[in-house]
Amino acid sequence: MKPNKSVKSSIVHRLKITEGHLRKVREMVEKDAYCIDVLHQSQAVEAALKEIDSLVLNNHLNTCVVDAIKKGKPKEVIEEVMAVFRKSVKR
Amino acid sequence: MKPNKSVKSSIVHRLKITEGHLRKVREMVEKDAYCIDVLHQSQAVEAALKEIDSLVLNNHLNTCVVDAIKKGKPKEVIEEVMAVFRKSVKR
Amino acid sequence: MKPNKSVKSSIVHRLKITEGHLRKVREMVEKDAYCIDVLHQSQAVEAALKEIDSLVLNNHLNTCVVDAIKKGKPKEVIEEVMAVFRKSVKR
Amino acid sequence: MKPNKSVKSSIVHRLKITEGHLRKVREMVEKDAYCIDVLHQSQAVEAALKEIDSLVLNNHLNTCVVDAIKKGKPKEVIEEVMAVFRKSVKR
Repeated sequence: MKPNKSVKSSIVHRLKITEGHLRKVREMVEKDAYCIDVLHQSQAVEAALKEIDSLVLNNHLNTCVVDAIKKGKPKEVIEEVMAVFRKSVKR
Repeated sequence: MKPNKSVKSSIVHRLKITEGHLRKVREMVEKDAYCIDVLHQSQAVEAALKEIDSLVLNNHLNTCVVDAIKKGKPKEVIEEVMAVFRKSVKR
Repeated sequence: MKPNKSVKSSIVHRLKITEGHLRKVREMVEKDAYCIDVLHQSQAVEAALKEIDSLVLNNHLNTCVVDAIKKGKPKEVIEEVMAVFRKSVKR
Repeated sequence: MKPNKSVKSSIVHRLKITEGHLRKVREMVEKDAYCIDVLHQSQAVEAALKEIDSLVLNNHLNTCVVDAIKKGKPKEVIEEVMAVFRKSVKR
């Protein structure tokens, strides 16, 4: 990862918050919270992770992918991005 | 949540493992791991959460939803399940 | 499918419109439209199908699932709904 | 769209098949097929569209995006790809 520092610290910050929310999902299950409330909380965690993925991918495209293409080596980086895209639509 | 104990402990166990994997995502970002590796790890966390959601929803349908329908009160539980379904396809 | 007539005709109507939009995706490809425009149009078709799925599932829960549960036969209908849910989160 | 001819004809071919499958979804609804069967057929159409999207995006990355980056104009093409990615994870 070659983010500028502000992108990196923003991603780390969001991940820490998301870890807290995921811990809360577990605590809700441990305390026998209503299933539907558990599901909404879990889906919120998934949505937060998707937003983080977008930040990581955007950073990746603007750094590694641009560099590789300028160096005339597009093939591998494009295959990697496609693998991420294909997985994202299967979840 | 009204799970039998084995469902509940299985869900809690999976959530703890997923928390560990999410922590690892953050550590990867902190250590400047390759973006694509971060994304694969994050997508694995999302997939694990989806499987946990399925366990929670399955338990919910077999307990609360069955009970409410038997009591002649299907409306609210069905609306709640639909809300979860709609959110799930928007992520 | 046991919809009331208005649900059924609404679903058929939406499907016809979506067929038209899908045909347009193909025409765009045939006319060498810009890839990104093709993708947005295709994603709009997918979103429309998801909304139709919600209508079908909502109808199913309110009819077949309620009936089966009242008859004391929840198992198969719940498994079927879970299969749809699991697939929906893998797309 | 600047595909080579074989990519384009493959995409058009898949779209035609998918149009046929979508027509079948409507016919199933018109003939009061079982909701769950309708949903599986509809989900198969969505999966087929996702695969087509991958072909279109892959082609786009290998042509327009590579060209734009080589010309020193990465910004707009990356924003466009990110818009597609964000939408894809919201469906």
